Amino acid sequence: MEIIQEKCRQAIALLNEQNIDCWITFVRETSAVHDPALDLILGFGLTWDSALIITRTGARIAIVGRFDAQSVRDMKAYDEVIAYDQGIAEVLKARITQLNPSNIALNFSLSDPGADGLTFGMYARFTQILAGTPYVNNIVSAEGIVRRLRERKTATELARVKTVVKLTEEVYAELFAMPLRGMSEIQIHALCGDLAIKRGCGFSWDRVDNPIVNAGPDSSIGHGIPSELILEPGQLLHLDFGLRLDGYSSDLQRMAYVPRPGETAVPEEITRAWKACWSALEAGRAALKPGVQAWQVDAAARSELVRHGYPEYMHAFGHHVGRNAHDGGSVLGPRWERYGDLPFKEIDPGSIFAIELGTMVAGYGYVGIEENVVVTPSGAEYLSQPQYELILLPS
Amino acid sequence: MEIIQEKCRQAIALLNEQNIDCWITFVRETSAVHDPALDLILGFGLTWDSALIITRTGARIAIVGRFDAQSVRDMKAYDEVIAYDQGIAEVLKARITQLNPSNIALNFSLSDPGADGLTFGMYARFTQILAGTPYVNNIVSAEGIVRRLRERKTATELARVKTVVKLTEEVYAELFAMPLRGMSEIQIHALCGDLAIKRGCGFSWDRVDNPIVNAGPDSSIGHGIPSELILEPGQLLHLDFGLRLDGYSSDLQRMAYVPRPGETAVPEEITRAWKACWSALEAGRAALKPGVQAWQVDAAARSELVRHGYPEYMHAFGHHVGRNAHDGGSVLGPRWERYGDLPFKEIDPGSIFAIELGTMVAGYGYVGIEENVVVTPSGAEYLSQPQYELILLPS
Repeated sequence: MEIIQEKCRQAIALLNEQNIDCWITFVRETSAVHDPALDLILGFGLTWDSALIITRTGARIAIVGRFDAQSVRDMKAYDEVIAYDQGIAEVLKARITQLNPSNIALNFSLSDPGADGLTFGMYARFTQILAGTPYVNNIVSAEGIVRRLRERKTATELARVKTVVKLTEEVYAELFAMPLRGMSEIQIHALCGDLAIKRGCGFSWDRVDNPIVNAGPDSSIGHGIPSELILEPGQLLHLDFGLRLDGYSSDLQRMAYVPRPGETAVPEEITRAWKACWSALEAGRAALKPGVQAWQVDAAARSELVRHGYPEYMHAFGHHVGRNAHDGGSVLGPRWERYGDLPFKEIDPGSIFAIELGTMVAGYGYVGIEENVVVTPSGAEYLSQPQYELILLPS
Repeated sequence: MEIIQEKCRQAIALLNEQNIDCWITFVRETSAVHDPALDLILGFGLTWDSALIITRTGARIAIVGRFDAQSVRDMKAYDEVIAYDQGIAEVLKARITQLNPSNIALNFSLSDPGADGLTFGMYARFTQILAGTPYVNNIVSAEGIVRRLRERKTATELARVKTVVKLTEEVYAELFAMPLRGMSEIQIHALCGDLAIKRGCGFSWDRVDNPIVNAGPDSSIGHGIPSELILEPGQLLHLDFGLRLDGYSSDLQRMAYVPRPGETAVPEEITRAWKACWSALEAGRAALKPGVQAWQVDAAARSELVRHGYPEYMHAFGHHVGRNAHDGGSVLGPRWERYGDLPFKEIDPGSIFAIELGTMVAGYGYVGIEENVVVTPSGAEYLSQPQYELILLPS
C-alpha cells in the first residue's frame, strides 16, 4: 500500500516537471487486458470502465464501477473515489469539465509498451465521451510520465528488486548443485520452477518459457520453449530466468559446462567467447551513466564484442527491470525500427536494468551473460553477484 | 498444442461465415500488455512487434521477432513463420500486399474487452505501416470473430472447464469442513489459496481479491480485498472464487451460515432471500437458450428477483467463462451504457457462462449464488453441482 501511495506522489511531481495538467489512466476489465501502469498507481485490477486521474495540483481521483470502489478507497492512494452504476460517461465528462485541464495525458505510447495500456476500443470510447469539449483536442501521450515513474525507482522498489535478485541467485545455486547431466531441458525447466515456488516466488514472464533452458548447440536460442534435448558431456547449459516477489522482478542468465570424460577445463573456444562477452558487458556497464542516451550504452557493448571478432547480438543490450522483467521505458538498444524512439531517451539515476549479450559457440551451445544493475549518479552498480566464472558441472 | 490448432481451424470457418478476408492480431511485449485473443490462437507470449494472420482461404502466417520464431514454429498452428531482425514494417506490408485482402479485421473492439487487445500505440503503428495502401481504408473490428471463437467451446475446452469447476468444488468442500468460525476474511482467503495451490490450480483473476470473502453484514460487497473482519455466529460467509487449470477457468460463489448458540436452523430472513435468489437464477437459466438475445436472459432473472420483493442486482446476470473468469463476448446483462452492445448479441450453443445474482440480508450479510452452465441446443445445463442448500457451519 505505501509503495502505491509513494508512486502516486511521485507522479504529481512528474506532472509538474513535464507541464501536464492531468494524467488519466483509462481502463476496463484488466483481467483481460492489463495496463502495466496500474501496477504502479493502483496495485490491483479493475472491472468496469475506470478512470484514474492525477492532476498537477495534487488531486487524485478514481472513477470506478460500484463494486471496485471499496478496494480503491482501502488503498488510500486516491482522495476522491467516485462509484457509478450504469455507465462512466456522464460522471467522467462532468469531473473533467470541473478540472478544466489545458491538456490531458492519456495512457498510450507508440514506442513504449509499458506506457501503452490504453486499447484502441477504450481510446475510441474516451474521445466519444469527451466529444464536443475542448479537452478532446488536447490529448497527449502519458509516456513521459509513465516511463519516468517506472524508471526512477524509490528506495522501497530498489529493496524489493534486490530481494528477488538474491532469491533468483539462491535458486540458481541450488540448481547447479544438482546432478543436471542427462536431464532434458523440460526436466531442468520443471526443477527451476519447483525451486522458485518453494521460495514463494512467482515468474516475471510466462512460466512456459521461464526459465529458457538451452542444453547444447542444437537448442533454439531466444524465447524458446524447453525441449526434450538432453544435457550431455561436452555441452553448455544456458538458462535465462526471471522471478517475481512482492510485485518486483529479476531477470538473470546463468551458465554451466558439462566436461567430457577426462576434460578438466573448459574448452578454449568457450573461454575465448566467455571473455569477449564479459569484456563487452563491462564496456556497456561502463557507459551506463545518468545523462547519456540509451543507444550509446548499447553501442559501447556491441562494438566491444565485434572488436573481439564475434558477431553483433541481434537484440538490445539492456532493458529496465521492475514491475516486469521487460519493464518498458528506455531501451539500451540499437537505433533499429523496432525500438522506435526508446534508444534515444536519456538515462535517469535510480533506473534498474538487466544488461545482457551472448554468442553461439559452434559445437557447444550458447554463451550468454545477463546481470542486473542499478544506475547511481556515478555509474551502474551490480545488484546481482556477477557470474565471472563458468560453472563446471560434474560429468 | 492441439487446442491451439483446433481454435485456429475454427477461426478459418468463422472468417468465411463473416465474410472477412484476413484477420490480423497485432501485438508486442505481451508480458506488459496481453491480448486475450492470443490465449486462443497462440498459447504463449510474444516480445517484439508481431502479427498473427489468418485468412479466409486457410493461410496461417506469423510474422514475429527472430527470438520468438522457434516457439511459434513448434506450436505447429502457423504454416508460415516469418522471423525478422530489425523491424516488422517492410515484411508486414509486403506480405499483406501479396495477400491483397478486400478487408482486414484487426484486434480491437469498442464494447468487448476480450476482443480489444490492440493498444492505441499499436493501432497507430499498424496504420502508419500500411499508409498509402488501399488496405488501411478497409480495416474492421475483429470482435465478431474473436467473440465467437471464444464463445463456441470445442469439446476439449468444455472438458477443461469441467475439470477446473470440479476442483473448485473440491476446494470449497475441504474449506467448509474446517472450523472457519472466528477466522478473519484474510485468514479464510489465505486458506482458500493454499487449498487451490495444493491441487495445482492457479487463479482466474488477481489473487489479491480471489476469492472475495465476505464475513457478515459489514463486509464490502463486490470486488473487495479481504479484511480483518472476523466470522462470528449469526453471520453469513460468502465466497466468490475462480481457479484456472490448463488455461481454463471457473467462477463460483458458495455460502455458509454460522448459527448463534442454540440456533438450529437458518433465520427466516435468510431463507426467504435464498429462495428468491434461487428462483431468479433458475428463471434466468430457463431463458438461456441459443438464439435469444443476451439481455433477455438477464431480464428474466432480474424481474423474477424483483417480483419476490428484492432490489435489482447492480451488475449483469452472466458472463462467459473460459480462458478467463470474465471471458469477454456477449454479456447476459441489462441494456446499460457500460455494457455497450454486448447485451444485444445472440446466444451461441457451446457457450459456457457463469450466472450469478444476490442480495443483502440486513444484519446477516450478503446472499449470493453463482453457478457455471453450458448452453446446449435445448438450453443451459449446470457444469457445477448447484448449491441448492446453505451450508451450516459449526457454531
